[in-house]
Amino acid sequence: MPTAKKETLSKHFGTWYRKVLIDAGIADYRYPIKGCGVWMPYGFKIRKYGLQILRDLLDSTGHEEALFPLLIPETSLEKEAAHVKSFEAECFWITRGGLNTLDVKLALRPTSETVITPMLKLWIRSHKDLPLKLYQVVNVFRYETKTTRPLIRVREVSTFKEAHTSHATFEESEAQIREATEVYKRFFDALGVPYVISRRPEWDKFAGAVYSDGFDTVLPDGRTLQIGTVHNLGQNFSKAFDVTYEAEGGKREHIWQTCYGISERWLAAVFGVHGDDNGVVLPPKIAPIQAVIIPIPHKEKGEKITETCIKTAKKLEDEACMRVKADLREELTPGSKFFDWELKGVPVRIEIGPRDFERKEAIVVRRDTFEKTSVKLDELVEYLQALMEKMSKEMREKALKWLHEHIHSAKSLAEVKTFLNKRAGIVEVSWCGETDCGLKMEQEINGKVLGVLQNVKEKVSGNCVVCGKKAQNIVRVAVAY
Amino acid sequence: MPTAKKETLSKHFGTWYRKVLIDAGIADYRYPIKGCGVWMPYGFKIRKYGLQILRDLLDSTGHEEALFPLLIPETSLEKEAAHVKSFEAECFWITRGGLNTLDVKLALRPTSETVITPMLKLWIRSHKDLPLKLYQVVNVFRYETKTTRPLIRVREVSTFKEAHTSHATFEESEAQIREATEVYKRFFDALGVPYVISRRPEWDKFAGAVYSDGFDTVLPDGRTLQIGTVHNLGQNFSKAFDVTYEAEGGKREHIWQTCYGISERWLAAVFGVHGDDNGVVLPPKIAPIQAVIIPIPHKEKGEKITETCIKTAKKLEDEACMRVKADLREELTPGSKFFDWELKGVPVRIEIGPRDFERKEAIVVRRDTFEKTSVKLDELVEYLQALMEKMSKEMREKALKWLHEHIHSAKSLAEVKTFLNKRAGIVEVSWCGETDCGLKMEQEINGKVLGVLQNVKEKVSGNCVVCGKKAQNIVRVAVAY
Repeated sequence: MPTAKKETLSKHFGTWYRKVLIDAGIADYRYPIKGCGVWMPYGFKIRKYGLQILRDLLDSTGHEEALFPLLIPETSLEKEAAHVKSFEAECFWITRGGLNTLDVKLALRPTSETVITPMLKLWIRSHKDLPLKLYQVVNVFRYETKTTRPLIRVREVSTFKEAHTSHATFEESEAQIREATEVYKRFFDALGVPYVISRRPEWDKFAGAVYSDGFDTVLPDGRTLQIGTVHNLGQNFSKAFDVTYEAEGGKREHIWQTCYGISERWLAAVFGVHGDDNGVVLPPKIAPIQAVIIPIPHKEKGEKITETCIKTAKKLEDEACMRVKADLREELTPGSKFFDWELKGVPVRIEIGPRDFERKEAIVVRRDTFEKTSVKLDELVEYLQALMEKMSKEMREKALKWLHEHIHSAKSLAEVKTFLNKRAGIVEVSWCGETDCGLKMEQEINGKVLGVLQNVKEKVSGNCVVCGKKAQNIVRVAVAY
Repeated sequence: MPTAKKETLSKHFGTWYRKVLIDAGIADYRYPIKGCGVWMPYGFKIRKYGLQILRDLLDSTGHEEALFPLLIPETSLEKEAAHVKSFEAECFWITRGGLNTLDVKLALRPTSETVITPMLKLWIRSHKDLPLKLYQVVNVFRYETKTTRPLIRVREVSTFKEAHTSHATFEESEAQIREATEVYKRFFDALGVPYVISRRPEWDKFAGAVYSDGFDTVLPDGRTLQIGTVHNLGQNFSKAFDVTYEAEGGKREHIWQTCYGISERWLAAVFGVHGDDNGVVLPPKIAPIQAVIIPIPHKEKGEKITETCIKTAKKLEDEACMRVKADLREELTPGSKFFDWELKGVPVRIEIGPRDFERKEAIVVRRDTFEKTSVKLDELVEYLQALMEKMSKEMREKALKWLHEHIHSAKSLAEVKTFLNKRAGIVEVSWCGETDCGLKMEQEINGKVLGVLQNVKEKVSGNCVVCGKKAQNIVRVAVAY
């Protein structure tokens, strides 16, 4: 069985990535402002189908979609002390409206806690208004000074799904964190993107949060990518904005909040994790075209083959509910069509040539493995429905296996360094839990502490790799994007 | 037959409008920045269903959705002379990134011609790449100094659908204008929002366009609202950004462009045109809940009635493909439920009380007319499917009739003034076509020239109401939002 090559991809991920995004018609960052890019029509559709999965998951768990303003007065941003401290140096600031200088300067939202919380103050009166679970899908902005990279490190994050929930008690907010984590797991599972979840260290938690959990995956170059975060905000923002509710019994209490976000990095992860030397490989669920049908030209039978292609496309659309395209362009050879659709990651290619036509068959080629199978035309609907499921499952398993192969365990900082120098992925080490030690570790390994593994107390043993004291945690470290 | 009252609405439209948007859970503009507001969950859904109609119309006519950056470098905005002149005093300007002063200041897009055209330069090479018909749904910004009004005059236009098309010839761009006009007609027809189309006068055309056509409707207070515009840009932007294609034969020529936009004002029009004293009235196609089922409490039969409500809701969802809610809240009386759902504009209310239950019937109440009908439960699916169509049609007809009653003809400026002083809607007058005369007319009547009626040459007669010279056009004037 032929297998897909990942050679270029792993060695020259950055070059491959930028090129494939443009060539496949996904996203183009050659815009005159650094870190700002365009979702091209094909990429826009991938994004749309992916967002639909996320929206369905949120809607079915009682979240409601809303849309809040982009602009934040400096006076609002300042209200939560830790929050403004972290974000003010990263915001784009509007100081002029038309030809006037503004009295209060306005930030482009880097995230929306300080936009949403003042509105909650207007809407929430009693415990009957709780829980309130809102989300929006919007663009957010960071004045990024480092090197930018499409969808990964940008100035305009074009696609930020941020959820903001309000609760009557801390316990309910904790239950919400569990629900959010479950929603995100199911989202990444649907995309076949594997992840680890770590509790971010104190110095890397969201500004204004009580604690933050992060989802990370490993890209082909061995660096980790944060693809989702879940935060318990406690009462930090509700106290800063004085948002209270009337509890049963009449007492006014501050609400408890959580927030969790996923940016367009999930798309970067999909392209990176599943891609190969020939282009992107799309999980069937989010592929704008799930199967492309290509006629093999033939002098006598050409017309009838084309007809069969059109009929087959129609049948698959109607009976298998698939998104199908018959590529009948006459000016292109089958080979150049194969090249096009492989680049764009269409999950299945269906070829119909003269011999297949005679036999009432088609050749089905899987994009992920290049495996070829002859299938009877009248069995195609069932075959492809099963294949879509199979591919989703196998792509997920393959990616998960690859991630597991890139998680290592180390007993010393030297060992960690060896792993990270060869970009081997994530390394797990024992840690005392002290911030000083953590920061020292980051400096020594020239990498990042992703955070602490949860619910593994029984596995903690040995000593901190930095200070040698008794370990309290297992912590993940990596070279991160 | 009882009819819906529009008393408060016509006399105090502004007050009614702001209040109903918040009370119905549609939009809340009590945000700390003037002219910026929130789409609340219920309003967000109305917006979503409406946008879906628009997207379907665009997708089915070969448009492709994309997503372009928000920020425009001043150097890009400056390239088309008329364009920058019109917009620079209306833009929000970013001058700082973090703690740095930016070298080139950045505008928040007021519209996207200067964002999209530089990308077209990268994408369009030959006539084979044309036509290219793109659209996006985004937020755009105007530094509005006048009084703002939710969805009508705002600083953040949260929902701007802008289409941008590229063509090989002027003739093709003209055909595109016709297609765009047709798409917009069908969109407003689906919403039951009536309109007139006028060719905007020279001094009011889109900055950078060859000509602009505008769709206007009349709100209950007699003022007109621009709800859509269609522009032929000629080669103005393609020459400014030097975007050329290789024509057949090898010669390089500048592309021809059109653009057309609809902002969230279509929602303001829906609320204003169909609303009444009891709240908004939603066209069935965009109602998040198309029918609400309310049990009338009863001691003995209460439980069985509730059961019937649940079953009926399920049946309507499954068999009529309707969006239905059974409102089973026990703490509320039926009356207060009626009040709630009338405010929110749910097209149909279904009441099931003890007598209806016995007779296997339900009472169906239309939101637009308050007409009540008893319907057998097993005929409800068919009845409601027909009723949804009927309501859509009758709401459209009623609104159209109302618009026609608010279009007048005048022979003199004095007559125009009389109409406009009593906010009677649109007035049609004869005009010589000279800009000087047009501007003088606007000043005299303290109103706006909406533009010239197209294709009515045979109806033009008499003299210009301003200068008395032979009339060349019929022109519409109004007090406009």
